[in-house]
Amino acid sequence: MRLRSTIDFLLYDWLQAESLASRPRFADHSRSTFDAVMDTCERIAREKYAPFNRTVDLQEPQFDGEKVILPQCTYEAREAYAESGMLSAAQDYEMGGMQLPYTVEAAANCFFAAASISIGSNMLTSGNANAIMAHGTEMQKQVFAANEFNGRWAGTMALSEPQAGSSLSDIATRAEPDGADFESEALGPRYRLKGNKMWISSGDHELTENIVHLVLAKIPGPDGKPVPGVKGISLFIVPKKLVDTEGRLTGERNDVALAGLNHKLGWRGTTNTLLNFGEGKYPVRGASGAIGYLVGKPGEGLKCMFHMMNEARISIGTAATMLGMAGYLASLEYAQNRPQGRPVQGGPGSGGKDASRPQSRIIEHADVKRMLLAQKAYCEGALALNLFCARLVDEQHTGSAQEAADARLLLEVLTPIAKSWPSEFCLEANSLAIQIHGGYGYTRDFPVEQYWRDNRLNMIHEGTHGIQAMDLLGRKVIMEGGNGLQLLATRINTTIQMALQRQQLACYANQLARALAEVGGATKSAWATGNPQEALANAVPYMQAFGHVVLAWIWLDVGLAVLAKDADLAIAAHRGSMAAQRYFFHYELPRIGAWLQVVKSRDMTCANLEEEAF
Amino acid sequence: MRLRSTIDFLLYDWLQAESLASRPRFADHSRSTFDAVMDTCERIAREKYAPFNRTVDLQEPQFDGEKVILPQCTYEAREAYAESGMLSAAQDYEMGGMQLPYTVEAAANCFFAAASISIGSNMLTSGNANAIMAHGTEMQKQVFAANEFNGRWAGTMALSEPQAGSSLSDIATRAEPDGADFESEALGPRYRLKGNKMWISSGDHELTENIVHLVLAKIPGPDGKPVPGVKGISLFIVPKKLVDTEGRLTGERNDVALAGLNHKLGWRGTTNTLLNFGEGKYPVRGASGAIGYLVGKPGEGLKCMFHMMNEARISIGTAATMLGMAGYLASLEYAQNRPQGRPVQGGPGSGGKDASRPQSRIIEHADVKRMLLAQKAYCEGALALNLFCARLVDEQHTGSAQEAADARLLLEVLTPIAKSWPSEFCLEANSLAIQIHGGYGYTRDFPVEQYWRDNRLNMIHEGTHGIQAMDLLGRKVIMEGGNGLQLLATRINTTIQMALQRQQLACYANQLARALAEVGGATKSAWATGNPQEALANAVPYMQAFGHVVLAWIWLDVGLAVLAKDADLAIAAHRGSMAAQRYFFHYELPRIGAWLQVVKSRDMTCANLEEEAF
Repeated sequence: MRLRSTIDFLLYDWLQAESLASRPRFADHSRSTFDAVMDTCERIAREKYAPFNRTVDLQEPQFDGEKVILPQCTYEAREAYAESGMLSAAQDYEMGGMQLPYTVEAAANCFFAAASISIGSNMLTSGNANAIMAHGTEMQKQVFAANEFNGRWAGTMALSEPQAGSSLSDIATRAEPDGADFESEALGPRYRLKGNKMWISSGDHELTENIVHLVLAKIPGPDGKPVPGVKGISLFIVPKKLVDTEGRLTGERNDVALAGLNHKLGWRGTTNTLLNFGEGKYPVRGASGAIGYLVGKPGEGLKCMFHMMNEARISIGTAATMLGMAGYLASLEYAQNRPQGRPVQGGPGSGGKDASRPQSRIIEHADVKRMLLAQKAYCEGALALNLFCARLVDEQHTGSAQEAADARLLLEVLTPIAKSWPSEFCLEANSLAIQIHGGYGYTRDFPVEQYWRDNRLNMIHEGTHGIQAMDLLGRKVIMEGGNGLQLLATRINTTIQMALQRQQLACYANQLARALAEVGGATKSAWATGNPQEALANAVPYMQAFGHVVLAWIWLDVGLAVLAKDADLAIAAHRGSMAAQRYFFHYELPRIGAWLQVVKSRDMTCANLEEEAF
Repeated sequence: MRLRSTIDFLLYDWLQAESLASRPRFADHSRSTFDAVMDTCERIAREKYAPFNRTVDLQEPQFDGEKVILPQCTYEAREAYAESGMLSAAQDYEMGGMQLPYTVEAAANCFFAAASISIGSNMLTSGNANAIMAHGTEMQKQVFAANEFNGRWAGTMALSEPQAGSSLSDIATRAEPDGADFESEALGPRYRLKGNKMWISSGDHELTENIVHLVLAKIPGPDGKPVPGVKGISLFIVPKKLVDTEGRLTGERNDVALAGLNHKLGWRGTTNTLLNFGEGKYPVRGASGAIGYLVGKPGEGLKCMFHMMNEARISIGTAATMLGMAGYLASLEYAQNRPQGRPVQGGPGSGGKDASRPQSRIIEHADVKRMLLAQKAYCEGALALNLFCARLVDEQHTGSAQEAADARLLLEVLTPIAKSWPSEFCLEANSLAIQIHGGYGYTRDFPVEQYWRDNRLNMIHEGTHGIQAMDLLGRKVIMEGGNGLQLLATRINTTIQMALQRQQLACYANQLARALAEVGGATKSAWATGNPQEALANAVPYMQAFGHVVLAWIWLDVGLAVLAKDADLAIAAHRGSMAAQRYFFHYELPRIGAWLQVVKSRDMTCANLEEEAF
């Protein structure tokens, strides 16, 4: 209930989501339809996800040589999710969708992420189908995307390879035309793929009738060699089982073989696989290679895939946020019920504790409150950022031309933050949740240790912290003449100007203005020599500072919405939001000084250290 | 080998451990005997510990209702450790010890901690026996301590209870005199204990013939009720199996019953137990209650136990440090061998990568170097601090009266840092080690995820972060008129004065002087109102800042030792140490500003927040 009310406030009071219903695409919607979707998701998450979160951790996926074995609860969670219509919630009516704003879809999906992050991998299916909708042919949309949206099939993203994790230009999977008639295939130009794909989430299972792999591979150039770099990469649909143009299984197994499962630290409900394409385990139609259908143009695979990756990155940010939030709520409940010790009182050195009094609940200890408020500031702030980004997706799709252009640009700059910031700081929140539990937090009898393990993946998958930081400082803040950064600064300044008029917020507005100027200055200093080796040597500390400034802005803006609704702060939850905002400015924002110092000075202490000296 | 040379440098070049051999107690020793001990420990750790670190994680202790089942490797590791003589290394010759300096003992134990932290729990046995040596009768020393030192029996510390984790004043275990002749028992005044103890490491197993529990319990006062608070607590030896005055088992099982094993996130090689004392599972000698023998005086149990806890806290710091170090070395090796991507080059926005070149090893990426150097700075700095504290233990026991008094005072102030700082920042190092491995780091095919899980316990056991912070700011820096803090400042200033004379270090000396003044000012500001609720509201941020200043001092002092040995930095490892020192001052020390700000302003944002607002 507490999560729901937090989401409701952000959605309706802060982001004015209800106003989206006035746009033609969402004309059938209203707050009551939005609420109905959220009610349904909250219920399914409570009934089909939350009770089984530990089950999927303990009953890791097994591979018996032929099939992947998953616990029954995973099937039931998948079925309930598909039946809810959420796989196609944002799609057009004619695709079977509900034309729900993405903001509401993202908010509704939060309940599943908080209840059990790894029991489902539906985001991959939606994302896969979305990429086909954006770049595929009509036939590909009708055959593949439609059957993903309706729940019959699942989807994957098959990018990484064992020798090429973050470095996609080095993928070695090859795609060659499949016979002379390869271009006349109704499902799209037909190729034969050979190669190995690593870290493929939900790469194999029996949850659905079929699995639609979206695979990056290289088509050899005229010299028979793969084109080096990212320009040689194309995108293919490679179904696990072949289908006809009506979407019926032909009875032929495609040559996609599960080579092994990765055994992970957390996020164990989702299989993570090494897949072999075209190595001959399931020979198909008398030739070698897995059959795949080209999506978009040859050589534009990465561009098509990025369409999927940006939403995936925001989803990862939301996953990290909700794991943090689940830990916050669990540790809050624990702190409210666990008696232990007594708060300090009396004079210095007195020990300050009166053992004759009964024990207090640990929420009465100042340090426990500090750890709770830190979690609240991290997780509710990250949630606000994620929902703000979702709102930008709606602006991009349904706003005016100017709104759409601005939203696109802001999203470019904010995506690395929306992905990296929660994955770092909501992980830290999970560690605080363990700490509040003391020894119990370290046991499997309480949920918080699992949240912490599950969350550790988020700084790695969908682009590591290092990759996000290079993207931010190496590309996003300097692209288009720095327009993205400028636009963000304008938005932040708008909030600052409004906050200056609120007595409770004016000092924070000034603090944010100084922080923003510091980030701007650091950006210039980083690039002052024009040498990317110097500029990017401290890209991660830059991203940490940038993220903290963005979050401070979000909190200041949320603070304005709180005061607009309840100027006297009559409601306890509103006082809590304002305390989290103050926490962020008192405890967190001052951290940017240390991060930016090395950026500004283009500190090469690390980058220049010779290998032998480590 | 790299760990050994790091330890050798700190031990011999920095801490001048060889000079200890000139003291009467260590007169039979020399660098060659120290080296021989270290060679032996390094070998046993390599052969009996390291290969089985994953085994003990996967084959968690099981309880079949009667006995605890552990993998065979645990028995062999225990046997090899006991045979090495390390259990009694620092003891007198007449107790079968080697009269080894504690500094060398602590250094030698590092190899075991790095190889497999949880396969053994020998520190508990040594610590238990040490407490008996300090507070027990001659008979207790000969019967119990001697048989722990010689490896026949193991020891535990049984403090916590389910309802009283960090709050020892609330323990409910009762001890009542066992018959009218209870005081005439040769093994010490005989009591009957009843109660439950939680989180008892190695609380039950079949590794040794017997287990010696040191148990805190309350003797009822004249009114038949336990004395409230810590003053009512006494210490008892409660053997699992009863013994005679010759240390022979009498054949009687004492009423100490394993009620259950805690299933943990990490540190899985060591059983963690809930023990029931005197609940009747093993009735003994016709009365109810487990038989225990009083150690020291009634009501002084906590004082006696603290003797054990301080060394235990330093050991926990070392454990955290070595887990960090193991992760550092694993990620360094990975980074040196894993090809992936290419370092940036070219102009801004160019993407800066030439895909036609072969992939680089990831150690060539600036951000990977940053993550490696951060780990090095955290872990080698923490190791230096831990060894420095061990050296203080030797000063306290064998130095001149003044040296001993100073060492005691410094140890009081530094113990919370030696325990808390590595447990926080070497855990962070483990997270960076995972990050360097990318997706692989998240799998159980590589060791780093286990180090991270194992390390998470260190911020909790032996006194949580919150407890350490209250100890530091609430007691240690103000006790004895602030003499401890003053003495530490004097030592730090000595280092600063020396560093000012070194051109490479002068700017860091000035930076440290400013930081020290800031901590001093924050200490005063925290206590300015004399109200502990205000002073201690931000005790943890205070401890974090204090720890960073201590570590900066340690690094500056290590830097002096490096330059004293190799002024031209001809050796790569010395250049590495200086880079880690620079890293600490450039990237880490500036963080204290944000931590101290809330201390100085006695920020009550968290402490004052009402419960309903969370």
